[in-house]
Amino acid sequence: MSKLRLRISMSLDGFVAGVEQSVAQPMGKGGDRLHAWAFQLAAFRALLGLEGGEVNESTQVVEESFAHVGATVMGRNMFGGHPGPWNAEKPWKGWWGANPPFHHPVFVITHHPREPLEMEGGTTFTFVTQGIERALDLAKHAAGNKDVSLGGGAKTAQQFLAAGLVDQMVINLVPTLLGTGERLFDGVGDDLHGLELVGTVATPRVIHLKLARR
Amino acid sequence: MSKLRLRISMSLDGFVAGVEQSVAQPMGKGGDRLHAWAFQLAAFRALLGLEGGEVNESTQVVEESFAHVGATVMGRNMFGGHPGPWNAEKPWKGWWGANPPFHHPVFVITHHPREPLEMEGGTTFTFVTQGIERALDLAKHAAGNKDVSLGGGAKTAQQFLAAGLVDQMVINLVPTLLGTGERLFDGVGDDLHGLELVGTVATPRVIHLKLARR
Repeated sequence: MSKLRLRISMSLDGFVAGVEQSVAQPMGKGGDRLHAWAFQLAAFRALLGLEGGEVNESTQVVEESFAHVGATVMGRNMFGGHPGPWNAEKPWKGWWGANPPFHHPVFVITHHPREPLEMEGGTTFTFVTQGIERALDLAKHAAGNKDVSLGGGAKTAQQFLAAGLVDQMVINLVPTLLGTGERLFDGVGDDLHGLELVGTVATPRVIHLKLARR
Repeated sequence: MSKLRLRISMSLDGFVAGVEQSVAQPMGKGGDRLHAWAFQLAAFRALLGLEGGEVNESTQVVEESFAHVGATVMGRNMFGGHPGPWNAEKPWKGWWGANPPFHHPVFVITHHPREPLEMEGGTTFTFVTQGIERALDLAKHAAGNKDVSLGGGAKTAQQFLAAGLVDQMVINLVPTLLGTGERLFDGVGDDLHGLELVGTVATPRVIHLKLARR
């Protein structure tokens, strides 16, 4: 059965994005530090069409997290652009350019209806206004026998975690402090809904914590 | 030179103690879950005079964290008992019984003066009312060529971290959520003052993150 898999980078003090997120600074203040480890990896750079990079202990974690994924669910905040109703004249098309790195259906949870947006390379953004469970149903159907990847932002991840809908989670724990920003576990409570630590890959720059139901 | 070493157990959502700390529930609600891994270890049980327990990957981490320590600094909240001035008639003598597991000088940071308290086994509690730096000076002097261990509670650890006075830190990261309680990094800001990840020991129950200045 199709699983919902969350992978997210988090600081030692629990933040997955900094304050003051904007088009110019998508991850907020200091948020880039959470992803520096990934941009040093050849496997991650290749997904973005970038050359160079390292092969190290994180490579397999990144490759695993992108393998066997047939659809993605994300929040409006990760899709980005601007708050409120969509701008019809100058429609925001995501952060990722004409050929986004998903290459499968992506379901964007939003309060504001919008027609599906077909991009190059097999990525179609479908905008879902009926909540997280409806988005997950659509994504699982689209994924077929593959899994569904859960993107951010923090609030979307929190909703899926609190509802017990996440089947697997990789937290890329970065040994740095942000001090302020958006916390992964804010409002999630004290229940991991059966998720347990099943593996750890430790590197000098990032510790990958793998959680799943046994 | 004598170093200040903090070892502390923290939940995945960043808490080092639960809410509603009391004499009956020293670690607060859910706080026991942060220390279950330690109570399963023979090396930790022996320090408390308890029999049995396991030898596993955490053993060396615990042994290292107690080795080469000549003095301890802790906050009033870790010493415990009750808030406010000391009760002269029924003086609180700490959580640890007549023979506490320190066996060296312990400096308790408090707003309320009190005479030193000599216990069995080489532990003397000295109460310091002149702030964290004075407590650290006294502890380093008492430790001689050994190191100083920094205990909790959270607020004491935060003060030393924010002041950049911690030289080494072992965070025992427990893959559980507390949801509420006291956060290790609350108010510390975005600066680890040169502390970097220098090693990780991963076990199924707890991930030991070792940070130090290079």
